[in-house]
Amino acid sequence: MSILVVGSVAFDDVTSPSGSVANILGGAATYFALAASYFAPVRVVAVVGEDFGPKEEDVFRKHGIDTRGIERAQGKTFRWGGSYSDNLNEAKTTFTDLNVFETFQPRIPKEYEDTEFLFLANIQPTLQADVRRIMNEVRLTGCDTMNYWINRTPKELAVTLKLVDVLLINDTEAKMLAHETNLPRAANKVLAMGPRALVIKHGEYGATIFFREGAFGIGHHPFRAPALPIEEVKDPTGAGDSFAGGFMGYLASQKQVSREALKRALFYGGVMGSFAVERFGTERLQCLTRDEIDARFQVFRELTHLD
Amino acid sequence: MSILVVGSVAFDDVTSPSGSVANILGGAATYFALAASYFAPVRVVAVVGEDFGPKEEDVFRKHGIDTRGIERAQGKTFRWGGSYSDNLNEAKTTFTDLNVFETFQPRIPKEYEDTEFLFLANIQPTLQADVRRIMNEVRLTGCDTMNYWINRTPKELAVTLKLVDVLLINDTEAKMLAHETNLPRAANKVLAMGPRALVIKHGEYGATIFFREGAFGIGHHPFRAPALPIEEVKDPTGAGDSFAGGFMGYLASQKQVSREALKRALFYGGVMGSFAVERFGTERLQCLTRDEIDARFQVFRELTHLD
Repeated sequence: MSILVVGSVAFDDVTSPSGSVANILGGAATYFALAASYFAPVRVVAVVGEDFGPKEEDVFRKHGIDTRGIERAQGKTFRWGGSYSDNLNEAKTTFTDLNVFETFQPRIPKEYEDTEFLFLANIQPTLQADVRRIMNEVRLTGCDTMNYWINRTPKELAVTLKLVDVLLINDTEAKMLAHETNLPRAANKVLAMGPRALVIKHGEYGATIFFREGAFGIGHHPFRAPALPIEEVKDPTGAGDSFAGGFMGYLASQKQVSREALKRALFYGGVMGSFAVERFGTERLQCLTRDEIDARFQVFRELTHLD
Repeated sequence: MSILVVGSVAFDDVTSPSGSVANILGGAATYFALAASYFAPVRVVAVVGEDFGPKEEDVFRKHGIDTRGIERAQGKTFRWGGSYSDNLNEAKTTFTDLNVFETFQPRIPKEYEDTEFLFLANIQPTLQADVRRIMNEVRLTGCDTMNYWINRTPKELAVTLKLVDVLLINDTEAKMLAHETNLPRAANKVLAMGPRALVIKHGEYGATIFFREGAFGIGHHPFRAPALPIEEVKDPTGAGDSFAGGFMGYLASQKQVSREALKRALFYGGVMGSFAVERFGTERLQCLTRDEIDARFQVFRELTHLD
């Protein structure tokens, strides 16, 4: 089944202990779309400027990603610069030029309205809610957000959270959203805000999925997937969006969104995140094969499963 | 097979968001011995003062722990005070009165010399090395250490590390010991210092075991065990020693120290750590049953294993 992602397409400058790159294709929707494209047909709604050319478009096209929803606006594409020190868990933003992204109003092409899976990447919560309302036939909605919206637009975010099925955020965001430092208690509070499942990403320690009682099956036990211990993390940018792409992509490839499918999806999320950080930008995500992905899924299994 | 633990027995004052307790039985050897006692016969070498009475001794005796190696010295038992704020991962030490522990010289009773498994809890590295040399018939030696020794006595610690099989430390300690911020690279550097396996504990995110190439079997893939998401961590004191007790205890209960046994041991370590933090001090460790332990092992399995 197909997936629609709504979010940013950007040009990034990144510096990490492994080097520097400038003007590379990035943005949440880009990472998500590439990661998900190995599992299911992907459609993108985003906005780009006049500096987004055939070379960038080809990155999407080569993966069969439908770009009819990428709007061309007058001006420049969103640009972001960030640097990572030895602590690769956190980016220091060096600049943010929103450019055409500042006035982004997602427009859903008519042809996209039958999409079964929706992912609302990190954009203003009211825009997320608007898209979700237009896509009212969707089978499952995944959603990301960030500290900025949790702090600045809590009421708008509360509305959005009631409209989504799975929220994917990190530890800090979950604790901030719930006003609670204990992780399982924070998870329960967030689940009470709307989503039926909550994926909390722990960076190099993997991710945990918490279920609302009875959602997607029986019980409310959480489930944990590992991250791969990686000797050289070149560029952590986009790891979370690649995780979401693997997670949603795998779900869209399954007949049923069961608990077992969600658990496997959590593993595939980790797998795609682990590939993303091996090279700068989307480089690694552009040249994968499904065999490589499944081989790494097997490594993740061996990393955690007893005989 | 039997296990000998050499380390501290103490009286602790602890304050956490869940409350305060004073003068409760603690110390690394105590937590370790109680946790391990559910799996194998345990022997203890430690020193206590005149304030250590029959009530404290009974805690060990009730679990069949051999206390002939607990030396009574003139003076007071080691006392430690610590407090935890909302961030339960780190204790703030409020006082440390070493008392009789200051001049601790481990003496191994003759009857202990046939012990098969040895755990060197966190004491001065040269004392650890001395014990290891006396116990030269031992099948497997586990070892703990801490930032204090890593910084103050690196040469002495380097000697000890060459004499042990499994080192159990946390992320910060591993990175400090290796002078390396990347976890798998730090692990490789520590393994090059001597131990054949390295357990790195990640607090609420579980633990990873790294193997030296070819040690305990084929390959050098690491393995990860989860920690249980716990809604009320009452007192994290002793979680690491309880982890070590479950880990070493399970190994001592097995015919062979294979990779598969080490992986299961990592799960049992997490299980015993998760029990320890549920109540203050050793309270929870004192009243467990093997059935409860195995039921929680099953929960850990369900938390991480795909169908």
